[in-house]
Amino acid sequence: MSVQETTIEGRNAVLEAFRSGKTIDKLFLLDGCQDGPIRTLAREAKKHDTILKYVTRERLDQMSETGSHQGAIAVSAAYTYATVDDILAKAAEKQEDPFILLLDGIEDPHNLGAIIRTANLAGAHGVIIPKNRAVGLTATVAKTSAGALNYTPVAKVTNLVQTMEALKKKGLWFACADMDGQPMYRMNLAGPLGLVIGNEGKGVSRLVREACDMTVSIPMAGDIDSLNASVAAGVLAFEVVRQRKFK
Amino acid sequence: MSVQETTIEGRNAVLEAFRSGKTIDKLFLLDGCQDGPIRTLAREAKKHDTILKYVTRERLDQMSETGSHQGAIAVSAAYTYATVDDILAKAAEKQEDPFILLLDGIEDPHNLGAIIRTANLAGAHGVIIPKNRAVGLTATVAKTSAGALNYTPVAKVTNLVQTMEALKKKGLWFACADMDGQPMYRMNLAGPLGLVIGNEGKGVSRLVREACDMTVSIPMAGDIDSLNASVAAGVLAFEVVRQRKFK
Repeated sequence: MSVQETTIEGRNAVLEAFRSGKTIDKLFLLDGCQDGPIRTLAREAKKHDTILKYVTRERLDQMSETGSHQGAIAVSAAYTYATVDDILAKAAEKQEDPFILLLDGIEDPHNLGAIIRTANLAGAHGVIIPKNRAVGLTATVAKTSAGALNYTPVAKVTNLVQTMEALKKKGLWFACADMDGQPMYRMNLAGPLGLVIGNEGKGVSRLVREACDMTVSIPMAGDIDSLNASVAAGVLAFEVVRQRKFK
Repeated sequence: MSVQETTIEGRNAVLEAFRSGKTIDKLFLLDGCQDGPIRTLAREAKKHDTILKYVTRERLDQMSETGSHQGAIAVSAAYTYATVDDILAKAAEKQEDPFILLLDGIEDPHNLGAIIRTANLAGAHGVIIPKNRAVGLTATVAKTSAGALNYTPVAKVTNLVQTMEALKKKGLWFACADMDGQPMYRMNLAGPLGLVIGNEGKGVSRLVREACDMTVSIPMAGDIDSLNASVAAGVLAFEVVRQRKFK
């Protein structure tokens, strides 16, 4: 992964960047300025897990490259996404059956970071996330991944189901994580595998679930509903490790 | 678990509460007041994972029971800790071999909450945490546990090693989670067990490690150092579940 910082200056340019789904890591706004557009930007920052800092006009002038920042400068760390082919190439290079984590709408950057960290240590060849309704590679994700983002490729795709269908043609099987599934210990997870983890609250969406070949569950003994999404991903990923290497 | 809110009023009383190790969930300070004692309290709040709110004098007067808050009111949600005997009683009641998670210095409240959540769903009978150098049951922990704190007893002990020695006399074995241990799949984790998870950065401390009967590891395949503490606890706890119920 390479990181390149770019700045976006001016109220409309920054707002446009937020609305187009671009990942903004930091937003600098003019301190004391309370007009409508600036407050709109502050709201967008909150919504998108962007670090918001109020600074003086001198500081903004200093940071500005264009000289016309209008009280708003956004910094975007452009993490380079991998492609699905990069992930398959990594498996081929290691002469291993592909093992990919597909995240169907993880919203919490701490969960995404922890899952990328887990993917790396469980020997998964990559992580696939969807473009919409999910957190992307923000600075918080990079930090929580504890460096794993430098090694484990993360691909962002427009349509998870289409990606899954294409991967099925290359021999992958897909296991959907769901409480109604078969206990994971009883399913065969040793072959070329895509493990699908759902959204924190809603689980795996219907279309993605229907595209899966099997549904696996973690057997629960307790009083409450479900594990934290990153813990569940960890438990399932290491069951794959056990079946691949310790059986 | 029962929760009872108590308020502590006055600068010295609040400072004393922080210093004695009492868990303060929220601290209300007089807005605009910047003198030394108030700033000291703000610093303590930051250090102890306390939610800090600056409010008007009218608001403080309204909240105050004593009428002399001096600009500082702390709210402490007194979560009731269980005892180690409560945990053993829970195992006995279920007619199961005891399965306890011991946390040697977890500092991040999100990790503690996620681990209590995992303990509940893995069917562990309780969690033991040390009094010092570890986060206690704060509001963040309660929230992150997703309700598990209402079911899974958490005991706080002065000396982990002494507690372990006492539990050994009752038939428990202790497994220390450490990267240098034997792969967990090859160890017998099915009997009466205390699973020891270390601090996020430093792992299990020397004395606690020496008091353990065995050292178990999660086999790591990746490029980085270690899993997130709550993910590691989850992976290990569910290996215990597999050995107990699916072998």
